[in-house]
Amino acid sequence: MIYYDSPNPAPNPRRVRIFAAEKGIELPTQMVSITAREQKSPEFMALNPRGQTPALQLDDGTVIAESIAICRYLEALHPAPSLFGATPAALGTIEMWCRRIEMVVMEPVGKIWVHTHPYTERLGLHVHKEYGEWNRPRLRAGYKMCETALAETAFIAGADYSIADIILLTTVDFATFIGEPLPADMPHLTEWHARVTARPSSAA
Amino acid sequence: MIYYDSPNPAPNPRRVRIFAAEKGIELPTQMVSITAREQKSPEFMALNPRGQTPALQLDDGTVIAESIAICRYLEALHPAPSLFGATPAALGTIEMWCRRIEMVVMEPVGKIWVHTHPYTERLGLHVHKEYGEWNRPRLRAGYKMCETALAETAFIAGADYSIADIILLTTVDFATFIGEPLPADMPHLTEWHARVTARPSSAA
Repeated sequence: MIYYDSPNPAPNPRRVRIFAAEKGIELPTQMVSITAREQKSPEFMALNPRGQTPALQLDDGTVIAESIAICRYLEALHPAPSLFGATPAALGTIEMWCRRIEMVVMEPVGKIWVHTHPYTERLGLHVHKEYGEWNRPRLRAGYKMCETALAETAFIAGADYSIADIILLTTVDFATFIGEPLPADMPHLTEWHARVTARPSSAA
Repeated sequence: MIYYDSPNPAPNPRRVRIFAAEKGIELPTQMVSITAREQKSPEFMALNPRGQTPALQLDDGTVIAESIAICRYLEALHPAPSLFGATPAALGTIEMWCRRIEMVVMEPVGKIWVHTHPYTERLGLHVHKEYGEWNRPRLRAGYKMCETALAETAFIAGADYSIADIILLTTVDFATFIGEPLPADMPHLTEWHARVTARPSSAA
């Protein structure tokens, strides 16, 4: 098994590293440099036609790409502690929060990154600046949804730490990197961020 | 249990109906009219703050929103036939394809819908027409990824029908509704579409 990884600040490979750290799983790793555009090399594109890290190659050659797909594979092999939910209701609630975070927080972060950031402009990506800017208030609204939820529960999908917290943490830290730190007027989200950052896994 | 549903052409509520039909599950249903904007009513927003259907309310009051979260809850209650994968590798591969379809097919379809379609313009949604148009070739590239995969396997995530096929089918049918039918030069995708449409569940 080989885990194709990329260093921070890339948020998606970090999701898997945090997940593995929470489970105590050691992943044999090969680094893929995003700065050197190695993820777009013909060799890597043959593994994952999306040309993105992370990807996990199994011993039989099967490639599982997409961070959450890799985590779900690892969860099936190492069920405890459960990070996707151990009951039908927990499985559903955690999946709901994963999707909410990806659609109302990660989505605007990605659009701000691709369409407004000097780094992606330098790469010659097609830039829709006005559309990118329009995503800044959308991101704030997404954070607001999390703030409201975290006023009621210790973690984003309920009483227990889950994969949804990992998605939110890596998204928040990447947003901070691109110039969109947590809003100062969201105390529950800020406190949650300190709490999940204090876990040893967050150093991954 | 109450399933808050909306009629076609809404793609997301249909995902759950097809899923339930494949499993033989009967869902007690309440219709929410998107045309009448009932999903934005205070009553519905209290159930799902995203103001979107579908949502499933359990007997204890818990609400599971997001179509795939509902399906995952139902899969945990009714494991056979498995539509999310019955082995670790199948779980990972199916999740990978769900994410690929949502990011490279559904995402551009959603942007074309929101930013170019006369219906959404009429609703006064903020329109970035140029950005919407830019998503048409992205959608084609997304379909191309599916075409390449379907040259090798009968269903999008492998030899067996899965939730990934349900996501792709509902996306393709919604894309057709908004004026983006399947490209004529993708025979494997076209044949796959005929095959999954022939299943009784597709009438849902």
